[in-house]
Amino acid sequence: MWRATILTLYPQMFPGPLGHALAGRALGSAWTCEARDIRAHATDRHASVDDTPAGGGPGMVMRADVLAAALDAVEGAAPRILLTPRGRPLDQARVRVLAAGPGVTLVCGRFEGVDERVIAARRLEEVSVGDVVLSGGEAAAQLLLDACVRLLPGVMGAAASGDEESFEGALLEHPHYAKPRDFEGVAIPSELTGGDHAAVARWRKRHALADTRRRRPDLWAKYVASSTGGVDKPRQSG
Amino acid sequence: MWRATILTLYPQMFPGPLGHALAGRALGSAWTCEARDIRAHATDRHASVDDTPAGGGPGMVMRADVLAAALDAVEGAAPRILLTPRGRPLDQARVRVLAAGPGVTLVCGRFEGVDERVIAARRLEEVSVGDVVLSGGEAAAQLLLDACVRLLPGVMGAAASGDEESFEGALLEHPHYAKPRDFEGVAIPSELTGGDHAAVARWRKRHALADTRRRRPDLWAKYVASSTGGVDKPRQSG
Repeated sequence: MWRATILTLYPQMFPGPLGHALAGRALGSAWTCEARDIRAHATDRHASVDDTPAGGGPGMVMRADVLAAALDAVEGAAPRILLTPRGRPLDQARVRVLAAGPGVTLVCGRFEGVDERVIAARRLEEVSVGDVVLSGGEAAAQLLLDACVRLLPGVMGAAASGDEESFEGALLEHPHYAKPRDFEGVAIPSELTGGDHAAVARWRKRHALADTRRRRPDLWAKYVASSTGGVDKPRQSG
Repeated sequence: MWRATILTLYPQMFPGPLGHALAGRALGSAWTCEARDIRAHATDRHASVDDTPAGGGPGMVMRADVLAAALDAVEGAAPRILLTPRGRPLDQARVRVLAAGPGVTLVCGRFEGVDERVIAARRLEEVSVGDVVLSGGEAAAQLLLDACVRLLPGVMGAAASGDEESFEGALLEHPHYAKPRDFEGVAIPSELTGGDHAAVARWRKRHALADTRRRRPDLWAKYVASSTGGVDKPRQSG
């Protein structure tokens, strides 16, 4: 069973949306979700978890000693991840590795940030979800968990899980169409409705390439660099 | 009042975590959160919202006609955003613009994707939150809302809201420290505890630069390109 342990000041936020739909149906069978209150490890009479930043400035900083105690109380050897805008951007390759492991321990910061010393002392992996500033790590943690849980064995219905999906092949996914065949006077592209599987595959590949090139020059550059046989050869591994 | 309208197949996921902490305390005063069920706009007797992909393949595609009807029922002129891995990566500059507007209408896809024709016909802005594949757009929507809501007037306590935070100045934020002064034998850097404000500012700037350069070569390249007076001159606008 894949095990998610979340250290947060708001344990009531979990499982939250992850208690519904795909992830919710798999909760208790494919994965467990335990949110623990960091404040339970405060040691002073005010149960304080934060203090003013050394050197001054706005906001508060999460204390190293309290968070260290919370981390030290977590059993098991799952990767320990701090969600922070200072971290390495999360990508699908990392999600796959995490989903294949025993689970994750996620630390949700609040306030201005977390004392740097506990990050170093407990060797927290710093992970970022998008170049935005959040009110805390909780929304990022739920996004990471959602991405991992859908990959766990038995969670997605189809075995063909996500093989053609965005990023899995280093390209954005192609556009999608479904019934009705005519929508407000616009038809589904004829290549997709003719029953010619090779034509469908060519159309999808062409659009995945074109959309990646136009929308995501950063991904496109990586794709080109990794395609030894030229831009028409797909990468085989993430 | 900033207004969030979410079109989803799982309205019970909202406000979810956004009903707690900073965003939750501001709910009803600084912003409203209304989740609407896309399925209410289905027209057949099975209330179907999806169909098999034209051209074949795994999964299901959200129907253009049903989603169009759901979108057309939303009043107001807030930007309409589809959360999708095919979208433009969300960044703090876009978050600031959205937070300064009337609100957002967020479309949460599920299944393999959304019929391309409704994206074009309703001019949906496609936005991505991280290069990962989710089970649906809901976790991405909550992350976007969290980032916006904290910027609304009156939501954050301090007026000095986030001025030094990651991305606001095109650099990652500097590391943080707080009491205790000694944590497991590691002291707070002396530059931060000497009471010399200029020394503190220099230390923080030096570390913001070094960490951005080392951790995020992509941000670093943008920062250097936008710094007309060399790498030591901060950008003044986002």
